[in-house]
Amino acid sequence: MSSDNQFLRSGCPIVNGLDIFGDKWTLVIIRDLVCGKETYSELADSPEKIPTNRLAERLKMLEAENMLVKELYQSKPKRYKYVLTTKGRDILPILQDIAKWGNNYVEGTWIPLEWFMEAT
Amino acid sequence: MSSDNQFLRSGCPIVNGLDIFGDKWTLVIIRDLVCGKETYSELADSPEKIPTNRLAERLKMLEAENMLVKELYQSKPKRYKYVLTTKGRDILPILQDIAKWGNNYVEGTWIPLEWFMEAT
Repeated sequence: MSSDNQFLRSGCPIVNGLDIFGDKWTLVIIRDLVCGKETYSELADSPEKIPTNRLAERLKMLEAENMLVKELYQSKPKRYKYVLTTKGRDILPILQDIAKWGNNYVEGTWIPLEWFMEAT
Repeated sequence: MSSDNQFLRSGCPIVNGLDIFGDKWTLVIIRDLVCGKETYSELADSPEKIPTNRLAERLKMLEAENMLVKELYQSKPKRYKYVLTTKGRDILPILQDIAKWGNNYVEGTWIPLEWFMEAT
């Protein structure tokens, strides 16, 4: 049996999701990983220009939450790539819904490519 | 024609959604309003115990974003209730997907009532 004390704020599944990704950057990083970015410098290079300390901190948190794994792809010098786990990849429907909402209610926002909105 | 300068970070619809509700509390307030809470004290009374300054600030922001309207329901003393607009109510699919994700990946989270998960 689990007690509610295990939770930061409450046992609400929405609240527990937000305790992980309820901020302005985490879902932007996951968006980029879904779209095929893999390396730190690719992620840092997005149009939103995430501050690099923020990016490093969020990648560490996402790894600790098992939402991504860090894979060595070059050993000299060491270079890593970031790959979403199923837990991380399953954020996609949330991203698609936010994109729909944004397109409906924030004028002039970019229309995502079809594959992004239809991916499962 | 709109220029990208109109945007805080970029024209990405996900980013523009997060610029409004990408934090730990805004979607919790919208959850409560969807679930039938209407007054300031009902909202303050949720199990997550939102700090009241945070609640007041988010309600003001949501009103400024036309995601809710403030309606006078008693004049002496003045009492207001908060009612979601269509723009605010259309956050529901996002909440439902976060709830699904939370139930799948955060052990022991509460299972939402059926009406909540099936509402449109």
